[in-house]
Amino acid sequence: MERIGYLGPAGTFSEVALRSRPESRSASAEPYGSVDAALGALREGQIDGAVVPIENSIEGGVPATLDSLAVGEPLRVVGEMVIPVTFVLAARPGTALGDIEAVSTHPHGWAQVRRFVAQRLPGARFIPSTSTAAAAVDLARGADTWHAATAYQGAVCHEMVARDHGLEILASDIGDNKAAVTRFVLVARPGSIPAPTGADKTSVVLFQKLDHPGGLMGLLEQFAVRGINLTRLESRPTGESLGQYCFSVDLEGHLHDARVAEALMGLHRVCAEVRFLGSYPTANGRSPAVGPAHDRPAYDEAQAWLRGLNG
Amino acid sequence: MERIGYLGPAGTFSEVALRSRPESRSASAEPYGSVDAALGALREGQIDGAVVPIENSIEGGVPATLDSLAVGEPLRVVGEMVIPVTFVLAARPGTALGDIEAVSTHPHGWAQVRRFVAQRLPGARFIPSTSTAAAAVDLARGADTWHAATAYQGAVCHEMVARDHGLEILASDIGDNKAAVTRFVLVARPGSIPAPTGADKTSVVLFQKLDHPGGLMGLLEQFAVRGINLTRLESRPTGESLGQYCFSVDLEGHLHDARVAEALMGLHRVCAEVRFLGSYPTANGRSPAVGPAHDRPAYDEAQAWLRGLNG
Amino acid sequence: MERIGYLGPAGTFSEVALRSRPESRSASAEPYGSVDAALGALREGQIDGAVVPIENSIEGGVPATLDSLAVGEPLRVVGEMVIPVTFVLAARPGTALGDIEAVSTHPHGWAQVRRFVAQRLPGARFIPSTSTAAAAVDLARGADTWHAATAYQGAVCHEMVARDHGLEILASDIGDNKAAVTRFVLVARPGSIPAPTGADKTSVVLFQKLDHPGGLMGLLEQFAVRGINLTRLESRPTGESLGQYCFSVDLEGHLHDARVAEALMGLHRVCAEVRFLGSYPTANGRSPAVGPAHDRPAYDEAQAWLRGLNG
Amino acid sequence: MERIGYLGPAGTFSEVALRSRPESRSASAEPYGSVDAALGALREGQIDGAVVPIENSIEGGVPATLDSLAVGEPLRVVGEMVIPVTFVLAARPGTALGDIEAVSTHPHGWAQVRRFVAQRLPGARFIPSTSTAAAAVDLARGADTWHAATAYQGAVCHEMVARDHGLEILASDIGDNKAAVTRFVLVARPGSIPAPTGADKTSVVLFQKLDHPGGLMGLLEQFAVRGINLTRLESRPTGESLGQYCFSVDLEGHLHDARVAEALMGLHRVCAEVRFLGSYPTANGRSPAVGPAHDRPAYDEAQAWLRGLNG
Repeated sequence: MERIGYLGPAGTFSEVALRSRPESRSASAEPYGSVDAALGALREGQIDGAVVPIENSIEGGVPATLDSLAVGEPLRVVGEMVIPVTFVLAARPGTALGDIEAVSTHPHGWAQVRRFVAQRLPGARFIPSTSTAAAAVDLARGADTWHAATAYQGAVCHEMVARDHGLEILASDIGDNKAAVTRFVLVARPGSIPAPTGADKTSVVLFQKLDHPGGLMGLLEQFAVRGINLTRLESRPTGESLGQYCFSVDLEGHLHDARVAEALMGLHRVCAEVRFLGSYPTANGRSPAVGPAHDRPAYDEAQAWLRGLNG
Repeated sequence: MERIGYLGPAGTFSEVALRSRPESRSASAEPYGSVDAALGALREGQIDGAVVPIENSIEGGVPATLDSLAVGEPLRVVGEMVIPVTFVLAARPGTALGDIEAVSTHPHGWAQVRRFVAQRLPGARFIPSTSTAAAAVDLARGADTWHAATAYQGAVCHEMVARDHGLEILASDIGDNKAAVTRFVLVARPGSIPAPTGADKTSVVLFQKLDHPGGLMGLLEQFAVRGINLTRLESRPTGESLGQYCFSVDLEGHLHDARVAEALMGLHRVCAEVRFLGSYPTANGRSPAVGPAHDRPAYDEAQAWLRGLNG
Repeated sequence: MERIGYLGPAGTFSEVALRSRPESRSASAEPYGSVDAALGALREGQIDGAVVPIENSIEGGVPATLDSLAVGEPLRVVGEMVIPVTFVLAARPGTALGDIEAVSTHPHGWAQVRRFVAQRLPGARFIPSTSTAAAAVDLARGADTWHAATAYQGAVCHEMVARDHGLEILASDIGDNKAAVTRFVLVARPGSIPAPTGADKTSVVLFQKLDHPGGLMGLLEQFAVRGINLTRLESRPTGESLGQYCFSVDLEGHLHDARVAEALMGLHRVCAEVRFLGSYPTANGRSPAVGPAHDRPAYDEAQAWLRGLNG
Repeated sequence: MERIGYLGPAGTFSEVALRSRPESRSASAEPYGSVDAALGALREGQIDGAVVPIENSIEGGVPATLDSLAVGEPLRVVGEMVIPVTFVLAARPGTALGDIEAVSTHPHGWAQVRRFVAQRLPGARFIPSTSTAAAAVDLARGADTWHAATAYQGAVCHEMVARDHGLEILASDIGDNKAAVTRFVLVARPGSIPAPTGADKTSVVLFQKLDHPGGLMGLLEQFAVRGINLTRLESRPTGESLGQYCFSVDLEGHLHDARVAEALMGLHRVCAEVRFLGSYPTANGRSPAVGPAHDRPAYDEAQAWLRGLNG
């Protein structure tokens, strides 16, 4: 990859995630204003990869990413990165905690520092921004043009972006949940699938044929009979009407694992559509516990046994 | 097949079933005294096929057949025949209904004429025989050597055997259930599987890995996710201890159907043993209703789709 | 109970089972010629209880008992007895092993001594009897009136009946499976249910509403969601046509256990008919392992919680 | 209810939803700056009810509402309202389409007018606001104090708020999906549950005991065996770590329906926690299709049958 986009501006957690990839060393990193913009540029060939957030341990799935991957020109997840989310409260030099009447950050960031705000900044107004980094950047440069409605004196952001833009850090590690992490994915255009490592994940989106009772159970059974564990299952509206959902699913295993291939074919048969989003190494490198009935030798033996029956 | 055995003696419903097969025209028909004897002779190569009863609409599965097929040297079911079971009450010429104090027949036959006996022969004793035909044959020839304990004056048997041995028919069609049928199978040694006809059945015996709660559900799910309908499911003790069962199963479809092959491989993976008893045309010629998610095109499309994902 | 019937004649395993019950001490024991006869007498009030075999570790369910309990005037199982099945080969005094050309016993008994017969009595003919005891009794008294077809020189029976009738024991413990047992039930007319002991079993017969694919799974789910373990499940034909089955089921627990009561009500709703055959102490006295989600406190807490919601 | 809060400011779809309720006629309507603030005020007794968005046919569940209901002091949903979501592009009088370089609205609103923006305002920057109404209000009053970073000339909002604040409507009905609706709930403190109407919904949050494979299936089975249809199922992170989810569920039926009560008790037994969010009339007034095995008479008959068994 020569050019890799990310959810910008510079200093976002997306950039941190991108910098953690070996691919970033030899590629130019290009910020985009939204997930849609980054994935759109990827689809059009302006960039070769894109790093976007897909799931947060506090806020859950990132709708913009899930929905953009679920429709339109197919894309493929080729890697995942799990980044600890630590926030600082940043301000222009000389600002004291008592001076802060309003704080800007991304709504997800705001949701993760509620306790700190309640204790240390009770009464502070919230000014939403498109990213945590944007709040910091705007604070650093826009100081003298504030207007009443959107003026703010503090930004909740990553430490790196605060330092890069000359802001002062009034409080560190202010997240309510110290273990909070965000999961990012590196997305590419369809091509060869990353080779199995033994510790892989596969992502798919499942569109049901009919919205009938028990429909979801029918899908889950396709995984269960092959002993496949799901690490994420989210329903997302298809946009047609209330109650019409598709399911965004991460499962343990690689498309080249026999049990995963068979499950995906089974889902292909019973679903209106199965959208394959990719098989890729897990960030934690942990191999799934696959029961002896579902591992490769079990599949190979079953196939050999079947061939034997045919004489 | 040059020589085909059947559960004898001559005149049993098994012989009727054998005579209904085209194979019987050019083969010699050889009676055996028990299912075990017939299948044993088949295993040892003394005969090329054997016709034995496997299921009765009144009495259920025939344990001797189910158990003999489930263990030992493998055999294959290559055809099934469903024969209406009609009984007559036969006696030596000159016997009146009022003369009959005891009646002999196979216990299954006795169970199927209870109502007739209760109404017309109240108080008659039951003398079990090894087959309905044996009761008739013994009655015809053994008359003058009866002893107190086993003497009988009437036999419940098939009309054909009564006539063949010079017995008189005192009452016809005396079965409690006029729709009663028995299902027979033509068994052979393993070899090529009969080609799919579109209206086929497959028989297997499933031995569970562990006797854990929900174990049977786990097996049934393997069928359910592939849309396979079962026409018979019977538990049979494995003989090890009370509560240790295997399952004898008939299902709609042929080993060469993709959904059946996949289900059998799935069962092979989760079972201690899957014993394949054969795929063969159904007696009634009815094709199963296979949902669009489970037919051959669905399987082919799923496979093509999967190949496409790999680029 | 003043009068208790059993599957006779005297000396059967049924009598052994009856003698093992405390109820037998103060009651008269009355032999019946068949399971149907014993249960019929019970239904008509001629006796107060009946002991009949219901399941054998080698042969499986006893159809006559299962079917007689499943239809007609309701009866209730109030106890179970598990009796080791040990067989002897008995003959009239003076008979040597080499003199034996034919052997009589109940077909179930015959099935359990196959290996002994194959090794020590190859070529011996089988003469079926209505019970193992009847074979011994007839052998003891009927000696001088044998006729060609049913003459036999050996009987396979319980040691007790052989001794009682003056037969000699040519070989002991001749069963193929030394661990073979038969399970008997003590049956009564409906009345009060035996109090829960903590180690109880419940027996029911389930008739499905429709013979639809997945029908059995729907029934099993009713047990599974309440954490109920099944110890026996047998399909029995309803007699209407091939493939129409009801299910005879034993489960761990007592009707007065909340999880069992709820499961039975659930089955009553989804089945065409649920026939309750009784709750009674298990023969082995072992309490079932009930998960914390399904025991009495869990049910009580759930009910209290629900009441709280309304309050 | 004397005082009912809503997600403000005045002019939001939440206010439209509140105005559609009969309760609003005799109550004062009080805007709150966030869902958290409104539900917090309700919990503290400052208001008697609150109207907040819970689900959007395009964007899916509203995390702030789902999460606030799922934890903390219990609240109860007592009603739902489904409101068509129609957007206008509003601007200060005299502004032409060509003058618009940046547009502000709530991120959900922005997501729903992508196609309009792409066609008519390509290149327009997005300035997020806390609600669609806030974007309009700020545009109307904050005009002369804009600074570079947050200045905008257009707002995407409901027609009503644009008119109320003297803005001009440059384009109407600009949503990508003309059938888009948002579902709002009226929330109260726990008290008496609205009486069943025959067309009711129940909302719960399910916390699993263990994150084991098949865990979700175990929960869905509790609904399936009672024939209960789900209209919404969303996983939400519990915040502990990636992959730890609870499930927010809407189901057809009322707590006072026997099948719902039994299902909730079943879930209470198998879950770590079941949070009951309320039973309330559905907005569309449609009664669910309840199978004959799961309706009130079926439950009553099952209970009567069980009582009968006990003699």
